Amino acid sequence: MMETDIAVASSLKITCSRDDLVTRLGAVSRVVSSRGTVQVLAGVLLRAQAGALELAATDMELSLRTTLPASVEGEGAVVVPGKLLVDLARLLPAADVTIEYRPDEGVTTVSSGSYTSRLNVYAAEDFPRLPAIDVPLHAVATPSLLDTVDRVSRSASRDESRPVLTGIQVRFEGTRLIMAATDSYRLSFKETELQEAGPELEAIIPARALTELARLAAGTETVQLGANENTVVFGAGDSWLTTRRIDGQFPDVNRLLPESFEVEVELPRVEFRDVVRRAAVMAQRNAPLRLRFADGELTVSAQSQDVGETRESIPVAYSREPLEIGFNAEFLADGVDSVSGDTVRLKLINPLRPGLISADGDAFWYLIMPIRLAG
Amino acid sequence: MMETDIAVASSLKITCSRDDLVTRLGAVSRVVSSRGTVQVLAGVLLRAQAGALELAATDMELSLRTTLPASVEGEGAVVVPGKLLVDLARLLPAADVTIEYRPDEGVTTVSSGSYTSRLNVYAAEDFPRLPAIDVPLHAVATPSLLDTVDRVSRSASRDESRPVLTGIQVRFEGTRLIMAATDSYRLSFKETELQEAGPELEAIIPARALTELARLAAGTETVQLGANENTVVFGAGDSWLTTRRIDGQFPDVNRLLPESFEVEVELPRVEFRDVVRRAAVMAQRNAPLRLRFADGELTVSAQSQDVGETRESIPVAYSREPLEIGFNAEFLADGVDSVSGDTVRLKLINPLRPGLISADGDAFWYLIMPIRLAG
Repeated sequence: MMETDIAVASSLKITCSRDDLVTRLGAVSRVVSSRGTVQVLAGVLLRAQAGALELAATDMELSLRTTLPASVEGEGAVVVPGKLLVDLARLLPAADVTIEYRPDEGVTTVSSGSYTSRLNVYAAEDFPRLPAIDVPLHAVATPSLLDTVDRVSRSASRDESRPVLTGIQVRFEGTRLIMAATDSYRLSFKETELQEAGPELEAIIPARALTELARLAAGTETVQLGANENTVVFGAGDSWLTTRRIDGQFPDVNRLLPESFEVEVELPRVEFRDVVRRAAVMAQRNAPLRLRFADGELTVSAQSQDVGETRESIPVAYSREPLEIGFNAEFLADGVDSVSGDTVRLKLINPLRPGLISADGDAFWYLIMPIRLAG
Repeated sequence: MMETDIAVASSLKITCSRDDLVTRLGAVSRVVSSRGTVQVLAGVLLRAQAGALELAATDMELSLRTTLPASVEGEGAVVVPGKLLVDLARLLPAADVTIEYRPDEGVTTVSSGSYTSRLNVYAAEDFPRLPAIDVPLHAVATPSLLDTVDRVSRSASRDESRPVLTGIQVRFEGTRLIMAATDSYRLSFKETELQEAGPELEAIIPARALTELARLAAGTETVQLGANENTVVFGAGDSWLTTRRIDGQFPDVNRLLPESFEVEVELPRVEFRDVVRRAAVMAQRNAPLRLRFADGELTVSAQSQDVGETRESIPVAYSREPLEIGFNAEFLADGVDSVSGDTVRLKLINPLRPGLISADGDAFWYLIMPIRLAG
């Protein structure tokens, strides 16, 4: 594995395939910081090692390192503007690229065929020390991991004012992988049975890191996973993604899940989803969808003063007192989209308590807060 | 052709195919005004006529009308929110849609299978009277027309403060179609030979109208074209696009084109384009590309203080005193992209006069203003 200390200063010449460089830089530069307050974070670290070029980028929360075959003279590291080098590499005329750094000139030369440019560099000694990745690792099957991330991640919050909610709670218990995310309006929970035991780990991991991992690991069979006190490490192919763990107390998922429900109905999943989507068109400016259960029928309606009103019914096995409950249209559609299978199960207590969306044969559930209806 | 007076008031019931409605509404709603200062311009006019539904939208500059087969009861017109109806129509459950308007209720009912909604309507009497389209028409071959628009339109200005430059000057002279556009930094000019004589017309037409026409007419063989004092009319299939003519004096293209040039070089088009694009990556914040002709070689270079510098040479038949000229990278790339064929011809006078890009066998040229180089 890579060392994280940076040897600077000595002169350096790397030749590698343009296509390899484009692919790897494309991945690494996604982590480059776009905020621009710390200039060196807009850079990609290039480091020469025997027979390989290492690329690394970090925005202080996430970091990504990857290696590609290269012919190397000298050793050391240099930091070049990340986005610029990606744009440039794509357009280079020859199949090979040579990147050369001479400390006395303070610039990096990129050449390919008849093309030459001299890029200003950032000071490599300013580049942050990347988190160590020499932690004990466990292999986790990629499809199980990514399916779990995919089903859970859209409930994570994008609001940075409550950092804990921008994370996904990830827990391994023996061969079970458990993830939960909530933005306080809805909560997604999934339990996945793995073939082999995972690491002993309970961490709040930025949702962004896990969706970045999903992109990086697509097509691989296993992801290597490890953690230390501050950091979680993922290995996929020749790449290593590290992410800061989020400190804080994740909401107690078991306490949020009501112990029992009053009403339980089964709905044809695709039909229900389409009804919700159509109604959502008319639910302007977060107007709630109104779900009314009565006499063997669910009626979904929405009303926006500016626009008009919509109403559609589907048959449902329901024979109790009529029950009316309001939900945010987008959150309800997300929930119905997240379950698999032909039938979705909806459980309710009353118009003021959360509803639960789940499906048989799938240890996934989605809790959604109601919106109080007027009138 | 459609009448432009609007019969309001009477009740109305239209049934048509959902897919037809989605396609036609998609086209018409592109013209819906998004500015929102005049509410009714966000609407699409639906008008019943024997056996057909007419859809129309306008933003006061462009208007688009189209017809689709429908079963119709009653007659009259109603204006519904355009974007909303498009979004809704895409999601409707059945193959047919019924749109019903009853003046006493003041709402429009949209129903399809089990779905029903009631849309608020805009007052049809507030919908602007659309320009007349009963003008003498000439058929113009679509490919010739659209190729000419495509080659010329990117030189049109997007700056509304000089309206004339947001238009394309369109002229028919017998069987010749001539278009020119300029944003005062570059000028595109194309002459196209038509199989048949076009209308007698010289007009400044909003570039936006012509790019909208290109979208609308794609796949048709001919476009119908006519004009009156204020308006240009295009017919493509079952659709009619009308556009306001821009008043004012278009720059005198012949006066802008230098009578003679000092230097003329031929360059391999694709190679030159790629060299320009690579250099453009390094030309940050509108830094000019520097073209230096000397000793059988053209050297393209760029320098940005923040980023670094780039340099690349290609062989060229040039044996005079060295000549250095600066161009905006994006405008130069646009020009080289606009010509066809393997070879591009570049003509220059001196570093302070515009350069001309053209190609053999193609009555197209592109004039580009230089940028004064420092040093």
